[in-house]
Amino acid sequence: MPDPARMEAAVRAYVAAFDAGSADDVAALYAADATVEDPIGAPIHHGRAAIRAFYAGAMQTGAKLRLDGPVRIAGDYAAFAFSVHLEYDGARRRIDVIDTFRFNAANEVVEMRAFWGPANMTGF
Amino acid sequence: MPDPARMEAAVRAYVAAFDAGSADDVAALYAADATVEDPIGAPIHHGRAAIRAFYAGAMQTGAKLRLDGPVRIAGDYAAFAFSVHLEYDGARRRIDVIDTFRFNAANEVVEMRAFWGPANMTGF
Repeated sequence: MPDPARMEAAVRAYVAAFDAGSADDVAALYAADATVEDPIGAPIHHGRAAIRAFYAGAMQTGAKLRLDGPVRIAGDYAAFAFSVHLEYDGARRRIDVIDTFRFNAANEVVEMRAFWGPANMTGF
Repeated sequence: MPDPARMEAAVRAYVAAFDAGSADDVAALYAADATVEDPIGAPIHHGRAAIRAFYAGAMQTGAKLRLDGPVRIAGDYAAFAFSVHLEYDGARRRIDVIDTFRFNAANEVVEMRAFWGPANMTGF
């Protein structure tokens, strides 16, 4: 089983790496054969290289993440509520998201799923 | 596919029915063959009768729920952060939880998963 303290640390490292614009550091939190589904229902990114490319694209928006409330730790899952903040065309925009991370015994993320949809987009 | 507005309404009805102490009203939000896993890793409750019994027990604690932030709607899922507030032995206690609900085309919950663990319990 993964370690709860390391799982929470991974979530905080994820937010920090995203906000620093480091797709490498984000991808390093994932297992080599991990999957990312963002949002739920979108095509799934398989493997660390595809995941890195996905985040590199997302970071080009200049978006920053803010955790909203405590990270929930349950078995081999972490779940966390956060908001994505970005600005373009002179307007501030926000997306409210909940992510779930499933971890392996090496405390790597093996499955990420992002829960958000049109109703969670503000200012668009 | 379920309807986003009805999914969000179901989440709000869930909180209201729980706080009103109506296990019947909570169970009525579920499909007949639904599953409830609360928390992740605990034995799964199968079917509306078992689900009703689970909630009737939970309500005996006098716990009340408070949504923390917007309900996220993604495909056939709703995800929401909330806190559980209860009092016993003269102390106020809190648990921070994230739930995911998966819905069927009739806008009934077919799968509930609750993400919380020891690190999310305050005042115990």
